[in-house]
Amino acid sequence: MPDDQPVAANGLLDRRLFLQGGAGTALALSGISSSAADGEELRVEPWMKLPGSPFVGYGQPSRFEDKVVRVAANPPNAPGTGAARTPLHRLNGTITPNGLHFERSHSGIPDIDPDAHRFLIHGLIKRPLVFTLETLSRYPVESRIAFIECGGNGNQLYQKDAAPLNVQALQGADAAGMSRSVPLAKAMDDALIALYQNGERIRPSNGYPMRLLLPGYEGNMQVKWLRRIKVTEGPTMTKDETSKYTMLLLDGKSLQFVFPIEAKSVITQPSPGLVMNGPGLYEISGIAWSGYGKITKVEVSADGGKTWAPAALQQPVLSMALTRFRVPWQWSGGPAILQSRATDGSGYVQPTRAELIARRGAKAFYHFNGVTSWGVTEIGEVKHVYA
Amino acid sequence: MPDDQPVAANGLLDRRLFLQGGAGTALALSGISSSAADGEELRVEPWMKLPGSPFVGYGQPSRFEDKVVRVAANPPNAPGTGAARTPLHRLNGTITPNGLHFERSHSGIPDIDPDAHRFLIHGLIKRPLVFTLETLSRYPVESRIAFIECGGNGNQLYQKDAAPLNVQALQGADAAGMSRSVPLAKAMDDALIALYQNGERIRPSNGYPMRLLLPGYEGNMQVKWLRRIKVTEGPTMTKDETSKYTMLLLDGKSLQFVFPIEAKSVITQPSPGLVMNGPGLYEISGIAWSGYGKITKVEVSADGGKTWAPAALQQPVLSMALTRFRVPWQWSGGPAILQSRATDGSGYVQPTRAELIARRGAKAFYHFNGVTSWGVTEIGEVKHVYA
Repeated sequence: MPDDQPVAANGLLDRRLFLQGGAGTALALSGISSSAADGEELRVEPWMKLPGSPFVGYGQPSRFEDKVVRVAANPPNAPGTGAARTPLHRLNGTITPNGLHFERSHSGIPDIDPDAHRFLIHGLIKRPLVFTLETLSRYPVESRIAFIECGGNGNQLYQKDAAPLNVQALQGADAAGMSRSVPLAKAMDDALIALYQNGERIRPSNGYPMRLLLPGYEGNMQVKWLRRIKVTEGPTMTKDETSKYTMLLLDGKSLQFVFPIEAKSVITQPSPGLVMNGPGLYEISGIAWSGYGKITKVEVSADGGKTWAPAALQQPVLSMALTRFRVPWQWSGGPAILQSRATDGSGYVQPTRAELIARRGAKAFYHFNGVTSWGVTEIGEVKHVYA
Repeated sequence: MPDDQPVAANGLLDRRLFLQGGAGTALALSGISSSAADGEELRVEPWMKLPGSPFVGYGQPSRFEDKVVRVAANPPNAPGTGAARTPLHRLNGTITPNGLHFERSHSGIPDIDPDAHRFLIHGLIKRPLVFTLETLSRYPVESRIAFIECGGNGNQLYQKDAAPLNVQALQGADAAGMSRSVPLAKAMDDALIALYQNGERIRPSNGYPMRLLLPGYEGNMQVKWLRRIKVTEGPTMTKDETSKYTMLLLDGKSLQFVFPIEAKSVITQPSPGLVMNGPGLYEISGIAWSGYGKITKVEVSADGGKTWAPAALQQPVLSMALTRFRVPWQWSGGPAILQSRATDGSGYVQPTRAELIARRGAKAFYHFNGVTSWGVTEIGEVKHVYA
């Protein structure tokens, strides 16, 4: 049975600590709960004395959660152009609520009448076909849990100095286009035309009434408001796969057609924007994902990468889906640098930022998947740092 | 390779028909798509000529989906008492969006300030403990996908005549209370205090800031707006486990403390409220679940239970979670009676309505899990029937 001794420096504890109760639970209880006198009654709060509000057709979050919103990053005078980013530091689990799912648009969100919308498949096929939403909906449906990540995510981490940003602001800043070449093998393998997201019709900002879903591929290829698929002999070299979404390397050449997102992870709790409420027991938690399959391991460091502790992975671990990881942490109150490092089923290990830049240079812009570092100060502030 | 010949009467096709493309796909294409002249361009719609709407912090569904809402069933003059039911016939996949998750309240939805909320554990424990949301949030978190079903769900199917209702109206009508006895073994096994639902803080109508989650158990035990857990020597015989949530049997005695939901399934597409748009290929789809573990098999009938075809189960199939099933159906345009029948890992098979009532009587009210039947008429209407 695991005890409460650190398994890596700076207070990282055994990931199995709480599975069997006993020592770990007692540790936690002594650390962070408050005693009550036996038989003490709870205060009767005002909301217990009055009838509450009636039912509504479509529910909303509590008004006390009004800060849990996407943050938009727009160029000046272009209200519909830019990105709106998910507040990952305030979410948990592995499902992203539809209202908070990141979005990236360059001409705002169209107000599409689904009955008027048409979807065309043409090009090198026997017979071009036009679908309405109704005819398309009669095809066999498949549902899956998959991540979608902007290829431009975290591009600020290629910069020389650590930007004073949180996990939300570092989450999305691509330069998406509307026309991309997709390998036929991918289209025949696991591509989907997504009509629903988290059970309900996909929302306007994410492609209503239909978008392409290419599990594991960079976000901009998963075309929203999908109108047509043209089968061609080879890539069509659109602006969005030549001048954009190519990675400029050290030798002046560019990497083109890098579709899957490489294994990556980020700690969401604690992270900038959240505050540590004094020394004691915490859970370090975050998400990991890979466009090449399943996450097989996540390690966490509290000393800037010198020592590592294995994190527990939330089951079920699914291929090309967000995987939640967790590790208990006894924070002494001293300074700490928190990092996470993911490994996927191909054996690929998430590189440090220095390794990534040594390999690729700092002008690649896209596909940043280096280790991210959060510095914790003695007063419990959490800041983005390079380490 | 499966061909397109029926595997059960009235047009039910092989569940693997579309897995390999070929015959099945060609069948579908010929059945439900429209041809386009080669090179034909799509019409330029008005929403392609104007900038769309800007980003918002918390996204909402399309205005064209304004009928996809919960429907409230209230007693007269009691706006916060009753139930609001999920439009299952308009959803897909296995995740229920938070805004559409069923709710049941008897005094409306309280507007709880999470910072003022306190949670007490007391009774037969060494030291009573009081938690704030902050202290509770520092405990290790676990996330899981689980169903919650009202014990009173489908109680109208105990009635003599088939009520003219859809799957949404048959979905929830319990008589929940606020105080229930939970076996200590369950509490130590897989009970959770839920702070999040689908990644974001649980919403007010579902227990903000915290509710009990008892996977597989009837909904009313999963107490919302959780204030206290008292450890006692045995059940406390609250009104909600004596006069309510007990099942009156044929011999005048009642079944008490039936916690887990028995294996159950229902077809969501097609179902009442949806219309069949002429003969041709459709997918019959629905959800199955069991409080005793995983769903291992779902069978579908199009002739009122005389012949059955095995349905495909959407992976991953998780214990005590909704499992989506699907089977392709070539509808001839003639009358049909659609049914589904679930089997779980314990070997338990969902009974017919007649079998359930023969065993339990028609006054049990709770835990109705008999097979539900949808009649399809020649003009494509879908109605609730007994068969």
